[in-house]
Amino acid sequence: MNQINRVAIVGGTHGNEFTGAYLIKKFAQFPDLITRPSFETVTLLANPNAFAAGRRYVEKDLNRCFLKQDLQDPTLSSHEELQAKSIQHTLALSKRKQADFILDLHSSTANMGLTIILVNSHPLNLKLAAYLSQINPLVRVYRCSFKSIEENPFVNSLCESGFAIEVGPIAQGLLKAMLFQQTEELVYAVLDYLEQFNQGRIPLTNETLILYDHLSVVDYPKQPDGTIFGMIHPELQDKDYQALNPGYPMFLTFDDKIIVYEGASTVWPIFINEAAYYEKGIAMCFTQRQQINI
Amino acid sequence: MNQINRVAIVGGTHGNEFTGAYLIKKFAQFPDLITRPSFETVTLLANPNAFAAGRRYVEKDLNRCFLKQDLQDPTLSSHEELQAKSIQHTLALSKRKQADFILDLHSSTANMGLTIILVNSHPLNLKLAAYLSQINPLVRVYRCSFKSIEENPFVNSLCESGFAIEVGPIAQGLLKAMLFQQTEELVYAVLDYLEQFNQGRIPLTNETLILYDHLSVVDYPKQPDGTIFGMIHPELQDKDYQALNPGYPMFLTFDDKIIVYEGASTVWPIFINEAAYYEKGIAMCFTQRQQINI
Repeated sequence: MNQINRVAIVGGTHGNEFTGAYLIKKFAQFPDLITRPSFETVTLLANPNAFAAGRRYVEKDLNRCFLKQDLQDPTLSSHEELQAKSIQHTLALSKRKQADFILDLHSSTANMGLTIILVNSHPLNLKLAAYLSQINPLVRVYRCSFKSIEENPFVNSLCESGFAIEVGPIAQGLLKAMLFQQTEELVYAVLDYLEQFNQGRIPLTNETLILYDHLSVVDYPKQPDGTIFGMIHPELQDKDYQALNPGYPMFLTFDDKIIVYEGASTVWPIFINEAAYYEKGIAMCFTQRQQINI
Repeated sequence: MNQINRVAIVGGTHGNEFTGAYLIKKFAQFPDLITRPSFETVTLLANPNAFAAGRRYVEKDLNRCFLKQDLQDPTLSSHEELQAKSIQHTLALSKRKQADFILDLHSSTANMGLTIILVNSHPLNLKLAAYLSQINPLVRVYRCSFKSIEENPFVNSLCESGFAIEVGPIAQGLLKAMLFQQTEELVYAVLDYLEQFNQGRIPLTNETLILYDHLSVVDYPKQPDGTIFGMIHPELQDKDYQALNPGYPMFLTFDDKIIVYEGASTVWPIFINEAAYYEKGIAMCFTQRQQINI
């Protein structure tokens, strides 16, 4: 890739994640903030119906609707499946409007700080992630484990360049000014970087990057009928990106028993106690911390 | 009132306030925890459909459906209006099951600590609130401004004795072990107090109580079309129950202007940035701090 011609900033992919949704509203009202000389910037409120209802989704999680095979399946017609096809049409299929870089803005009830979620290892994404984590120590980089673009159900599957930004902790359905401003600054830093990229003046970064690579997910303690029977242990709450060693407490059950981490080696949990993941059976995601050369 | 015969612990009045809902599940499974010699304790998951959906309500806020005139209106038939009538039947109209004391468990995204919400000034409620705030410094007492029981749309309108407990900050749709345990301890303290009340041995308390009396509500900055155009100012976020003086910042608009509090005298805001109140047009509630004799 030699030139970025169109950047899409997407928010409200989950309708109750207000930080991204209201940033989209702000940028739409004050377009100068996201205008850069060498490319066009467009904004997209991805799931306006869910946003209006103050809910993550109307029928189905939109950010799981972008599998290539699902986008091509004419029988899939829930609100979000149709919305995904419409977004694909706008951001990927239309030659005139096709985005070269997609920045998808999310928020989490977990203590995710300012997380870059990479869905691939494209050199531009890695270098930009390294740059962002260098200018802001709150930035962390999480890499999903998709083996190919076909496996990736996120909005970001529509375009090789770009990533999601996941900020937290913040409850669903509200705005926190500090996190709003930090996310906004991150968006401007991305746009400024891409502007310099287009001008052939990529900012220098360290040659290494700390990555948190996805390993596995862990469910809550449950009763045989599937009912939750415990909570994140108080000592693990908000400890996203911190080392969890064998024997450390993970859960506290409703009958006051401690469940410890019984793995063989240290992991780095993230998305600890994300509200939207209760229904997915995910209490946290384990990652492996590693330093890579870029 | 000389004797409490039946205490009702209610949770999940709002389906996405998990602390109360899962405490109800815990108590239902381990009834010994809430059993006391001199009275019967019953539990009620107030809005199971909303809880199953992980939403505050299905059609309408259940905790606004208990106005006497609405309970008597046969034309009101939304899910929550019917549910309110059913709850009234169980907890108030049935001689056999009628509750003498209702404890309704709520949670908030605002930094409410452990708040007792009084809907009247019944001496037992005041004395119990004073006792609880004495044994736990996190406990605060907020008194609503209902002039009569006819004005009160809460579950607690069904019974003169009792109150709601509002704990926070916690996002909707999740559990935080520490807050779960603090709420649980508060429930046991209420039950123990009522047991001693029945035995004629009311624990001694201070003769004064700090009350936060409801004054008014404040909406977010909005555009002419009703769209939110600002957020709680970072300096006010999480400052529930702290003095807000004239000239102090309240909001930060999307075009980075600060809106200050322009009232004539100090107020004590609570429910600052409660997610469920965005749709109600409430950014916070102003209260007046006062010390009363009990």
